[in-house]
Amino acid sequence: MLEAKLNQAGLLKKILEAVKDLVTDANFDCSPSGIALQAMDSSHVSLVSLMLNAEGFEHYRCDRGLQLGINLGSMSKILKCAGNDDAVTLKSEDAGSVVSFTFESQKQDKVSEFDLKLLEIESDILGIPDTEYAATVKMPAAEFQRICRDLTILGDTVIISAGKDGVKFSVSGDMGSGNINIKPTSAADAKEDEQTVINLDEPVTLTFALRYLNLFTKATSLSGSVTLSLSKDVPLVVEYPIKSSNDEEMGHLKFYLAPKIEEDS
Amino acid sequence: MLEAKLNQAGLLKKILEAVKDLVTDANFDCSPSGIALQAMDSSHVSLVSLMLNAEGFEHYRCDRGLQLGINLGSMSKILKCAGNDDAVTLKSEDAGSVVSFTFESQKQDKVSEFDLKLLEIESDILGIPDTEYAATVKMPAAEFQRICRDLTILGDTVIISAGKDGVKFSVSGDMGSGNINIKPTSAADAKEDEQTVINLDEPVTLTFALRYLNLFTKATSLSGSVTLSLSKDVPLVVEYPIKSSNDEEMGHLKFYLAPKIEEDS
Amino acid sequence: MLEAKLNQAGLLKKILEAVKDLVTDANFDCSPSGIALQAMDSSHVSLVSLMLNAEGFEHYRCDRGLQLGINLGSMSKILKCAGNDDAVTLKSEDAGSVVSFTFESQKQDKVSEFDLKLLEIESDILGIPDTEYAATVKMPAAEFQRICRDLTILGDTVIISAGKDGVKFSVSGDMGSGNINIKPTSAADAKEDEQTVINLDEPVTLTFALRYLNLFTKATSLSGSVTLSLSKDVPLVVEYPIKSSNDEEMGHLKFYLAPKIEEDS
Repeated sequence: MLEAKLNQAGLLKKILEAVKDLVTDANFDCSPSGIALQAMDSSHVSLVSLMLNAEGFEHYRCDRGLQLGINLGSMSKILKCAGNDDAVTLKSEDAGSVVSFTFESQKQDKVSEFDLKLLEIESDILGIPDTEYAATVKMPAAEFQRICRDLTILGDTVIISAGKDGVKFSVSGDMGSGNINIKPTSAADAKEDEQTVINLDEPVTLTFALRYLNLFTKATSLSGSVTLSLSKDVPLVVEYPIKSSNDEEMGHLKFYLAPKIEEDS
Repeated sequence: MLEAKLNQAGLLKKILEAVKDLVTDANFDCSPSGIALQAMDSSHVSLVSLMLNAEGFEHYRCDRGLQLGINLGSMSKILKCAGNDDAVTLKSEDAGSVVSFTFESQKQDKVSEFDLKLLEIESDILGIPDTEYAATVKMPAAEFQRICRDLTILGDTVIISAGKDGVKFSVSGDMGSGNINIKPTSAADAKEDEQTVINLDEPVTLTFALRYLNLFTKATSLSGSVTLSLSKDVPLVVEYPIKSSNDEEMGHLKFYLAPKIEEDS
Repeated sequence: MLEAKLNQAGLLKKILEAVKDLVTDANFDCSPSGIALQAMDSSHVSLVSLMLNAEGFEHYRCDRGLQLGINLGSMSKILKCAGNDDAVTLKSEDAGSVVSFTFESQKQDKVSEFDLKLLEIESDILGIPDTEYAATVKMPAAEFQRICRDLTILGDTVIISAGKDGVKFSVSGDMGSGNINIKPTSAADAKEDEQTVINLDEPVTLTFALRYLNLFTKATSLSGSVTLSLSKDVPLVVEYPIKSSNDEEMGHLKFYLAPKIEEDS
């Protein structure tokens, strides 16, 4: 049995918006420690991994493991019926056939209840090994979104090069070629979310499909900053931290994408 | 002969926006007491009734009855040429073939005149009996609009139940089911337009097609509040008051919709 | 060799937005005095003439004439990768095969470089004779845009009549007819861009295709005011001044459109 309450439905709405175009159906794995979701996108190229820790909820109760198979498009539609500042409570019985969403307005003059039918979804949880990455780049999430969108104009593949002087995004196509260079933030007084910070063991250059990066950046509204983790021959991780309504980190949304094999390397 | 001036073209624009998707052609019945319009929607399911009292106009002259047959889409297009704060004057001769619209900007540096050809439209004015309703619900117009739009996600039919504790809107469909409960406003200090007030002789539960309710809510910009009047076996009335530029009530826009017959009642 | 720097990429973006729907490919003629572009629209009905004087650039170097054949749609796409407040530098070698665009953010933490392939474009520069016009009308650019858009509702041809009392735009079509009258500004204290000023040698009445006027008004964001120059039997000129970032006039964008021959005159 699950009972989980968030004070701001807006957070859950943003998470669904970030995931629903990538994954159609997915299992929410509820346990005493929180709610997790792991799914490949429908073309089995990228992987989404969501974690919401129990402590981040205003109220959380889940005595034992419970798997909720949900069509993310339907869940997203139901969440659109909630105001961003409504409280939302998810409930489901053990072995139940529905998950219910209760939305309460702040003034408590409007209470809505929606029941969504659950699905049977086959899925294998992949173990993701903890990796030391050669380079991590923390940068403003909106800037990363803009770069991915802009470069799509010229081609469908981006080369990301992280070095000590900055990170470079390059593209080329029929129309011409382009590259965008982002330098690490030197001013110590910049706001945390506006900083670009590069941690580098060794320089890395990897190639990725822009189509997937653009889908990942639908999570931009979740967080001021995004972290890219890169190592040769392992998938890129694009991570958005998730903060609760009292601004504490309550989990994350991570996207994994394997690099393209470059013919000339 | 008609000559009718409103200080704010925006009001007439909003009225046309509210009606033009429901009714294609309609007669404006002009008389010394004001301008009225009554028309069935094109599928003959719902009825629109507009009344604009002569006193609400800045200037009004109509010596004897005059019927102006107008294509509402064309009239709406012509009104789009007016600024919201332009004054608008409607003129038509007895037995004329056009109605003219004159728009004057506040600074009087721009004067536009448009002639719209009149149509012959057959119509029967239905007598709408004055009914005592079992329940009336006055609520914020934007809230009603949002509810109708949100419930469309789950189904195409809504059950409205008015009781002493509040009004409930329910829907169900393939994806699941939902209901939204609105409580009467208790705080005496709430702004009038934000209040929900329920007058109840007896509880009523009726079923309606959401498609039409959604069309009615195009009138939402006309008024802060909307009033629903419900009784068993008679059409629902959805009424938006119309206020003149000095904030006095100058008429109304009413929509009538027959309830669906429920098989199980 | 060309090297030209503007402090605000937004200006170049607006120019491209104004021209790209009218002209597909065009030559930018770079010379020591500045950058010029002249091109017929793709249906060979109207003519676009752009001039950007060397003095208006933050930095400008062009030792000898250089013609850059550019697909305006591609250039517009590349400019979308610049922030409005980014500095933009155009560079091209003599007999080079590309033009490069460098965008630098104000904080200098982001530097982007795009190379756009050049095209061979055949073009004849038309000598446009300096004409004394019977009437010139300077009016707010947004007002002119709105009039052209509004009148399109009723027909596809506008009759423009400039007289000493004002300028009249008339249209007629199946739905009805309309005319919009703009009076010259009398108040001496009005802001310059909001004034309507008419210089008249003799009254002029000419007919034009609204389709092209609507395309010209895509330049509206470039300038607060627009000037229409009219004479019998010669093309209308629609001129938008172009101002540099320190608000000095650095050039213009002119559109030329031949009047329609009216059967009854």
